Parts: sequence; structure tokens; C-alpha cells
Amino acid sequence: MSDRIANAQLRGKVMSAEEAAQFVNNGDNVGVSGFTGAGYPKALPTAIAERAKEAHARGDEYMINLFTGASTAPDCDGVLAEADAVRLRTPYQSDPIMRNKINDGTSYYVDYHLSESGLYVEEGFFGQMNVAIVEAVRITEEGHIIPSSSVGNNVEYLDNAEKIIIEVNSWQSEELEGMADIYRINRLPNRQPIPITDPSQRIGTTYIDIDLDKVVAVVETDAPDRNAPFKPLDDQSRQIAGHFLDFLEGEVAAGRLTYDGYIMQSGVGNVPNAVMAGLLDSKFENIRAYTEVIQDGMVDLIDAGKMTVASATSFSLSPEYAHRMNEEASRYAKQIILRPQQISNHPEVVRRLGLICTNGLIEADIYGNVNSTNVVGSRMMNGVGGSADFTRNGYISSFITPSIAKGDAISAIVPFVSHVDHTEQDVKVIITEYGYADLRGLAPRQRAQKIIDIAHPDYRPLLQDYYDRALAFAKEKKTMQTPHLLGEALSFHQRFQETGTMKKA
Amino acid sequence: MSDRIANAQLRGKVMSAEEAAQFVNNGDNVGVSGFTGAGYPKALPTAIAERAKEAHARGDEYMINLFTGASTAPDCDGVLAEADAVRLRTPYQSDPIMRNKINDGTSYYVDYHLSESGLYVEEGFFGQMNVAIVEAVRITEEGHIIPSSSVGNNVEYLDNAEKIIIEVNSWQSEELEGMADIYRINRLPNRQPIPITDPSQRIGTTYIDIDLDKVVAVVETDAPDRNAPFKPLDDQSRQIAGHFLDFLEGEVAAGRLTYDGYIMQSGVGNVPNAVMAGLLDSKFENIRAYTEVIQDGMVDLIDAGKMTVASATSFSLSPEYAHRMNEEASRYAKQIILRPQQISNHPEVVRRLGLICTNGLIEADIYGNVNSTNVVGSRMMNGVGGSADFTRNGYISSFITPSIAKGDAISAIVPFVSHVDHTEQDVKVIITEYGYADLRGLAPRQRAQKIIDIAHPDYRPLLQDYYDRALAFAKEKKTMQTPHLLGEALSFHQRFQETGTMKKA
Repeated sequence: MSDRIANAQLRGKVMSAEEAAQFVNNGDNVGVSGFTGAGYPKALPTAIAERAKEAHARGDEYMINLFTGASTAPDCDGVLAEADAVRLRTPYQSDPIMRNKINDGTSYYVDYHLSESGLYVEEGFFGQMNVAIVEAVRITEEGHIIPSSSVGNNVEYLDNAEKIIIEVNSWQSEELEGMADIYRINRLPNRQPIPITDPSQRIGTTYIDIDLDKVVAVVETDAPDRNAPFKPLDDQSRQIAGHFLDFLEGEVAAGRLTYDGYIMQSGVGNVPNAVMAGLLDSKFENIRAYTEVIQDGMVDLIDAGKMTVASATSFSLSPEYAHRMNEEASRYAKQIILRPQQISNHPEVVRRLGLICTNGLIEADIYGNVNSTNVVGSRMMNGVGGSADFTRNGYISSFITPSIAKGDAISAIVPFVSHVDHTEQDVKVIITEYGYADLRGLAPRQRAQKIIDIAHPDYRPLLQDYYDRALAFAKEKKTMQTPHLLGEALSFHQRFQETGTMKKA
Repeated sequence: MSDRIANAQLRGKVMSAEEAAQFVNNGDNVGVSGFTGAGYPKALPTAIAERAKEAHARGDEYMINLFTGASTAPDCDGVLAEADAVRLRTPYQSDPIMRNKINDGTSYYVDYHLSESGLYVEEGFFGQMNVAIVEAVRITEEGHIIPSSSVGNNVEYLDNAEKIIIEVNSWQSEELEGMADIYRINRLPNRQPIPITDPSQRIGTTYIDIDLDKVVAVVETDAPDRNAPFKPLDDQSRQIAGHFLDFLEGEVAAGRLTYDGYIMQSGVGNVPNAVMAGLLDSKFENIRAYTEVIQDGMVDLIDAGKMTVASATSFSLSPEYAHRMNEEASRYAKQIILRPQQISNHPEVVRRLGLICTNGLIEADIYGNVNSTNVVGSRMMNGVGGSADFTRNGYISSFITPSIAKGDAISAIVPFVSHVDHTEQDVKVIITEYGYADLRGLAPRQRAQKIIDIAHPDYRPLLQDYYDRALAFAKEKKTMQTPHLLGEALSFHQRFQETGTMKKA
């Protein structure tokens, strides 16, 4: 048995994943660790999926409700979805099979803000949490859990589940110990201020204390996190990143930002990574991140001495960077803090710190509303994630996106978004490879032209035509606040549904 | 000269409103006091409107950008709008003339969350604030301002404007002194936690300290706040209120609320007042309000010993109740606190306290998205106000609405809202006279039937027909997360535009 399980009581609970899976029953609310492919349980999901398949073969029902930090990986979301073992999924997912099961109606998906999903479990909005399955680097002599490469909603699930299953993964470096900063917000009515005034502050413990008597199984694993590699930087990403950096420079010039005052929040992806690459060569120093996930680009900024601290709830690293993190975890632990996602994304702290927020989108409309979740209004992509936790409360909230997708079949700028996740009040800057639209202090009609001007040139005339005719109609009807032609508002999406492209024939 | 102006330097600045208006120039950013018809300047707006009219008669340009706390009254928003003197209006308005000027395109309107609008001024998103015009009960010997019946964004405007004009209104009771609790959040990068853990806590001063050298004029007035009377309670409001109280009782039964633990946030209106009337006869005690405005119903709850404290930023009282408040201000000041709106609506405090939030709406869709601002997607009603500050961060966020409007021409439940101010992630409960839909923990398809079931019976078959056909289409297309028929999603609104009713002929 691994010497990573130092607690005597829990050593007595070691068993196989198959044995442990017997504690997970049809209909259970199951809260697992895992956030953007890091720190999810590696063995139990497959074992539960096998149970589901056997039950289904017998003609029995077997589906669980699956709660996570955020997305996981093929050996967690993927295997469970494939076995039709998930009735309800929350709060975020990005596995292709899971997504298909949501879109074909097999699984319900509840899309909640990542800072709130653990809270809602605590508050009983989903009923009793039955089982928590959490990956650990090790279990201490006292029975404390040292979380692995993500913290996510671990605390909320461990605190609220009737049964606990721990996976001790020897692939995860023991030197990750020290990165986690576990802090519990008191329950109502005794909540107190969260005492974070700088991303570098540690306010909790490096371990999670649990009720040992709830532990029904400990399972040993030795399996890597499965993260996708980032694509190499391309010209388009560099262009978008360049416009973002120009925007930052403009804020410095306007006296609203200093070169050592940038606190970053960044969504995951290739364009954000390009932004970080651009920052390497910029005048910005002492960059701090208060964000959800540590990405490759942040590791580079730390290594270059440009980033002094990165606070997040998880890693989202390419395999190469994940390997490096595992090898040199004790060095990085001086500058990286992993917090519960309720804290990493908390509106209170986000607003206090004055973050400059940068997230991706599916589409924005000409007035600045943003859709991050539902393609053509209906098909779920991933979920809102933490983007709204940050966007609503950030100091400056920006969205970065290529102007087209699926070749040129989809325009990222449309007349009227088919789903809204970020309202026009919250979206302050939109950036494409054609420039940035600074929407601050502007009314909808003042924003529209700025947004159309950064659309793809192939779509600009279509958008301009819509806007001009909407304006004329609105002038006549006295509906000038947000001019629209309702019969055509969703025409881009209808055309895409009918012809496979938003372009006109 | 009134003995309400105790400071010698400022006594030297007393002049007429007409003289003071000379300090307000074409193109100025002008921040005035006033929130829901309380505490707005009574004389300067008319004097500025006169300047505008004279300028326009000469063929000169004269328009200001008008910043307030929230809505004001005919003698502020109304006179300025009527004179075409407002180029840009923010953050909230409800005056009929102002609204018409926005909708006919004369004035731009920037709709921002009320907790953020003052912040954005501080942060320079609108450029330099030129003039602050603030109503006071009195000016102390030191030159401190005692705010009158609202606090709103007074602090931000006074701090950031180049010039200050004070209106000392002798109609306002001097006994209002003591109600205000003025607290400044440090500017970035030095923001600290806001130390409020209960609505009853006072954390600041009863006055606003200002830079006396910026004061260019002091104007004496004697004019009442102009609030609209509430309508008498009707059966429909009582029914909706009854369902809300049933919901609260259900929370108590579920162990998520205690009879002495209810902390109220409430939008303004007749239905909220009916809720408060219902609470008079309920088992709830020690009710506390952490909200934007003090309404008649809260005064009744205080008088009945049911409400222990009401924290807000302003009054929104009927004339009868405003008179009572003026007469007995010193008694009520023990239980009423008026804070800057940045504090009364702050996400940090809203989330910490665990508010149960109740706001109105224009329309909700079958998946729980809510439109609070733009009628048929385009025509501005009032603005989002503070509803999103509270809804996003509240413990339980509910919306209350009659199921139909304009006779029966408009259904409050539609297939697809024509504008989104509250996203599906945030809307937890919707209540009409037909019952409540508890949406917590549910996926969109699970919500839809619950929402359709509380629509008006005349509209239920139309909604059910849409939903059933959208489901069938989505099943085929594998878009089951949020089933929609894009070609018909806005059909209720199109029908209303074309025929004057959302009903089918």
C-alpha cells in the first residue's frame, strides 16, 4: 500500500475502484473533484460506468447526477456519458460525448456560475449530496486530504456528502502540497468578509479536513491528468492579442492603469495564451493573476519574472507543461495558489481587486450582448463557467474572439444573440483580429457602429444593412434605444440552420 | 438666509438657481442627487432647462449629460427632457418625457447597474465629471453636507466633479440627519472589505465631507419630493403576494429559512407592497431589509414591530407616507439607514447577507431568462436599476409579475425574451397570480413546463404549442438543451407589433 495514505483508519478503507463503486447508487447526487481536466478522479468514473452498463444490460435503471468543479476528461465525463450513466450534469462540461448526450436529451445540464455551484449544493438546492469522490495527492496522518491539481468544489462536496471516496493518485507530485489554500465561508447567517485584498494572500490551510467516519473507500491510482495541448500560436491569435495589449497601453496612457498594476483574469484558450506571450515582451511587470485556471502562458510569465503570483482553482496545462509542473511543483508553489472555486471566482474578491477580465465568446450582438453557451440558441457548447463571475464584477471586462468560425460560415458578430449570458450592461470591450470596440460609457446606438466595425469584412455589409434598416424603422416607431427588426433579428442563425452558413447566397 | 447653512464660506455662495445655472455649460457631465423621486435637486433642473431653451432659441447647442442616483421626478428629469437639454442619461430613469426622448432618439441612455454607476464615474469611464448638484437638509458649520431623502451617488459626484452646487431644501425635515451612513470604498488598488455583516450596521458618518473650494453655489429651496401614490391593493396583487408568502413558508418547512431570518430585498411597486401587507399577518418576525428603497409597506412593518431595520439608499414613499416620515424622522432614524447606492446594492454585501430578492419584470421566457428593460426588444422602459445587483448575488432571487399586461394584449411569459437583463443562471423563482415556479437546480427543459403552468390561461396553449413543437424539432436536430424554433421565437412580439396583441386572431 502506498505510503501516501498515512492515516490508520483510512488505510483500512483501501479497496479497488470496482468495490468502491458499489457505494454509488442509481439516482445519487455524486460530487467529484476536477476542473478543466485537472484533479478529477481517475478510477471511479470508469467503475461507475461499468456498474451502469451492467444495470442497463439487466434492464435496470442506473443514472447518477454528476457534480464537478468544471470540465473533466474522457476518463471521467466521457466514460460516464458513454454509458448513459448521467441523468443531470452541473455546473460545467466540455467532453464531446457528454455534450452530445446533453444535446440529444439523454442528460439534463444545469448551467450555473462556477462561484455559486458549490454554494447551491450547501444550500440544498439540489437535495442531499450522496457521494463525494475526490482525488488527493496524499492523506495525512490526521486524515486530512491534500488536494491534487485542482481544488474546485472539493470542500463543498466533502462537507455535504453522506459518503466520501478518496482517490490517492501517485502520478500527482507530492510537492503540490502547499499550493492549495483552503478557506471556508461560514454558512448563513454567519458569513464574514473574505479577507483577500491581494491575489498573493493565503488565508486558509493547505489541506481539507474531513469527517473520517464518512469515508467509505480509499482507492489508489497512478494516472495522469488529461489535458489537451494548445495549438501553436497563429497570426490571428497574435493579432487579437496585439489589439488587447494596445487596449492595455491605452489604459496606462489614460492614467487608469500602471505598468505594475495589472491583475489578470483570463479564460482558457489559444487567444488568451497569445495574450500572455505578448505580455512577455511588454512593459508590464508584477503581473498578478486572480483567475480560475493556470495556463501555459502564465507559467512562462512566472518563469520570465513578469508574473509575481497566480491565484486560481486549477491547472489547465498542456501535457508538456503539466509534466514540468509536476517536476518543479515546490518551486512553483511559491507563486501559485489554488483556492476553492467559490473563492477564486467570488464576486466579492473579483470586484475588490479590480481585475481586468478577458474571456472568449460564441457570439456578440451589435449592442454588446454576449452568448457564451448555446449555439444557435439551443445547442449547448460548454456552459457559462466562471466567465460571468468575472465579467459582472471586473474592473474592465473584455471579450476576445476571432471574427469568424467554422471557416467563414459563422460570424462572431450577429444582429441579435441567440442566447444571452453576459448582458449589455456588463460587456465593456470586444476584441477581434480587426481591432477593439471600447463600449464603456456608451449607449446601445453608440456601441453598434463600433462593434460592426470589428466584424469580419465579409459580414460587415450584412450587419450594416440590418442596423441601418433597424434604425430607420426605430426612428419611425420611436424604439430608438435598441433598434431591431424582430422578423430579421435571428436571420443570421436561421440562415445558418437552413443553409449551413450565415452568409447570404 | 436660512440657518440651515451654518458654514461661513458657503453662506457667501448663496445665490438664485438662475445664477447658479450659469455654472452648467453645454456638454457638461452633470451628476445630481435623487433616487426614486426622493432627494433630487428642486430648483437647478428648471433653471438649466431655461438656459437650454434660451440657447436653443438663439440657435446654439445646449445639452448636458445627466447622471443621477436613479429616477427623479417631473421637476428634474421631466423639465430637462422637455427642454431637449439631455444628450446622455444614466443610470436609471422613469420620467415619461425623459423616456420618450430616449425612445425617439433625442437622448442616449446608458443602462448600468446601480451599484456600478458611481464607480464608473470614479474610474473615468465617462470622462471628467463637471458639476455635482446635490440636495441637502443642511450644511454644517464645518461645511459638511447632510443629505436629504436619498444618498444615491452623491458621494461619487461630489468627490469627482470640478464644481459643486448645493441645494438646501427646507421642506426636508432636519430630523433626517442621522439616517445617512456615508462610507467610501477606497479607490484601486487599496480597496478593503466592506465591514457589513448585518443590515443594521452603521459603518460611516452621517454627513458627506466635501472640498469646500469646489462649491460654486448654494441655492435655497422649499419644495417637496414628488412621489407617486401607490394604487390600493387589488385582488391580483394579493394573490401574487400570497404565492410569494407560500414560497417563503416552504423554505421554512425545508429548513432553509427561519421565521426570524428573512432579509428582504424588494423592488418598488404595488405587488411588493402587497407582499409587505401580507407579511404583517405572517409568522415572520425580525424582518430586515437590505434593499434600495424604503417603501410604504416597510414603514408599516416597522410600525407593527415586524421589521427591525431597513437599510436602503432612498425613500420611495407615497405623499402620505413621505409626510409621516418628515414628521417623525427622528423616530424612524433608529431603524432606517440610508447608504450610498454603491453600498446598498454592493454584490459583496448582497451575497454575504443571504438576501431573498424580489423584483418585477417586463417578461420572462419559458426557460427563465428575464427582460426588465426593453419592450419588444427595443423601447426602453426604465432600465435595469439595481435588480441585477441583487438578483445575481441574492440567496434566493425571485421575480413577481401579473401574468398579463395592457389588458390581455401582452403575456408576461413568452417563448423567447426580446431582451435579456437577468440570465437563466440567475433567475431562481418566478411568481404570477397563478402560482410560483421554483426553478432551482433545474435544467432548461425541466423549467419550461413549470413556467408555462403559471402563464395566463389564455396564453398557456400558445406557449405549450410552441414548446411542444420546439421539443420535437430539437429532438431531431439534437439541440435539446434549450429547444427553440428560431423562426417563431419572437413571434409573440412580432404579433404584438403588427396587431397590437400577442394573442392569435
